Amino acid sequence: MNDAQRITGVLSPVVTPFRADLAADPDRFVRQCRWLSSQNVGLAVFGTNSEANSLSVDEKIELLDRLVGAGIDPARMMPGTGHCALPDSVRMTAHAVKLGCAGALMLPPFYYKGVSDDGLFRSFAEVIERVGESRLRVYLYHIPPVAQVPITLGLVERLLKAYPQQVAGMKDSSGDWNNTKAFLDAFAPSGFDVFAGSETFLLRNMRNGGRGCISATANVHPGPIARLYDRWQGADADAQQARLDEIRTVFQKFPMIPALKAAIAHYGRDASWATVRPPLVALTREQAQALVTELDQKQFTMPGL
Amino acid sequence: MNDAQRITGVLSPVVTPFRADLAADPDRFVRQCRWLSSQNVGLAVFGTNSEANSLSVDEKIELLDRLVGAGIDPARMMPGTGHCALPDSVRMTAHAVKLGCAGALMLPPFYYKGVSDDGLFRSFAEVIERVGESRLRVYLYHIPPVAQVPITLGLVERLLKAYPQQVAGMKDSSGDWNNTKAFLDAFAPSGFDVFAGSETFLLRNMRNGGRGCISATANVHPGPIARLYDRWQGADADAQQARLDEIRTVFQKFPMIPALKAAIAHYGRDASWATVRPPLVALTREQAQALVTELDQKQFTMPGL
Repeated sequence: MNDAQRITGVLSPVVTPFRADLAADPDRFVRQCRWLSSQNVGLAVFGTNSEANSLSVDEKIELLDRLVGAGIDPARMMPGTGHCALPDSVRMTAHAVKLGCAGALMLPPFYYKGVSDDGLFRSFAEVIERVGESRLRVYLYHIPPVAQVPITLGLVERLLKAYPQQVAGMKDSSGDWNNTKAFLDAFAPSGFDVFAGSETFLLRNMRNGGRGCISATANVHPGPIARLYDRWQGADADAQQARLDEIRTVFQKFPMIPALKAAIAHYGRDASWATVRPPLVALTREQAQALVTELDQKQFTMPGL
Repeated sequence: MNDAQRITGVLSPVVTPFRADLAADPDRFVRQCRWLSSQNVGLAVFGTNSEANSLSVDEKIELLDRLVGAGIDPARMMPGTGHCALPDSVRMTAHAVKLGCAGALMLPPFYYKGVSDDGLFRSFAEVIERVGESRLRVYLYHIPPVAQVPITLGLVERLLKAYPQQVAGMKDSSGDWNNTKAFLDAFAPSGFDVFAGSETFLLRNMRNGGRGCISATANVHPGPIARLYDRWQGADADAQQARLDEIRTVFQKFPMIPALKAAIAHYGRDASWATVRPPLVALTREQAQALVTELDQKQFTMPGL
């Protein structure tokens, strides 16, 4: 991989469609990824918002194969590949590299809490060594509210020193701008690509040397978020950011993943999209109606879906 | 299964041996399980202390097959079968039932935090329905310090009502006796089997209608813990409990899983046992020496290992 061509911009942790029997639905998944691609949004499939940790490794490999098989460009894909178990992370990461994916977004092993940076360094190092591919690009996934296991500045420093070629960047889903800023200040000047964990921080991230965002709401509001990325140096950037924030605020009033799926079900006229796997629960009819009412009031649309 | 013969007593979340290349070591695993069985301790393989969430489902199935293939009695086994992903939990649970295991110790899906009891009910219900075996016995695994997703009284009540045959009990690793007591009071009289999460609470659990304990330190101190279970109504029960507490306190000064493995490596004269998978880290030489020195001072032994 030519590092001048590293993946940047706005990526969506693509929500995963399920059939009524809770099986993953590859056809709807491919259609959704095509639509997101048409909106100039990259595919961070198998993220938190994808219910990735409710999918087996076999299911994820099958879905990724279907995407690539359908002709969607792996150079615009950054699948989640980090699992609790080392063999699962190695298997999923190796498969993503084999398919030519631009990067692998890697959760730390998240079952054991209070683990040391030594242990986390070794976790990532073992994956990188066992995959053994110079073209692997790892993006470290910091999401302490969910994983409860953080990616620290010290860990990134050690990983960059040991694997300067493979350790390419991170997604910061801490929700704490000061944390994102600390990573930008420390590592962005030497080519470490920081993605904000939502478009809330997209403009600030770009103004401070970041490379884009990977956001739940890019599933439903992809075009406008991608436009801010393209025009972040434009005169209307702050106004664009304010409009993005307004829409995101509506989604944040509801459980995020079921709300994303309810919006896709409604605006895409495809009720089956509302299905989530346990332990998540779909929005109630009343919640879904309240979501749509509020989005309609804000002239929200999903053009082309 | 005749429910008069449900599994009770002291069980060990058996530590999993790894080779230098971090592959699981089935031969050492079988030997360890034989030794624990000889000490009258049941096999809660694939628990937290087994580094179960650092193992793939394929690895766990292979290890379980090896145990049963080696002639170890599945009626004394309660493997951990709960995963984040529904298909993984179904696959592992179905396999355990097929092999004749006495029970399945089931973590809730633990990636997504703040999920509802509705979502957790549905998670367990889907596993029970999809496994579809009347002889399945589920033991719910409450370990909020690690999983961060709790098993509540209300959830157990709903599950018992829906699946009175399959929902057999729980392991409470909250470390909070008041919580264990609440579950005992609510459900033990109607035949719900509560296992304390460590021998610290063994005597209290037995005196309040519990059925035993599943404890990390049963890996290293199995005989004496099993003896207290057998003689909990004896005159010396409190003295036995005090002796167990004294040994457990030593292990609690160190990271538990590496300390258990360091003790097995030392007292079993088999250095390779010290290996852990990342994100865990083995004890340093100094820590291991400090552990052994203190255990020796307390006349700790592992007879027959």
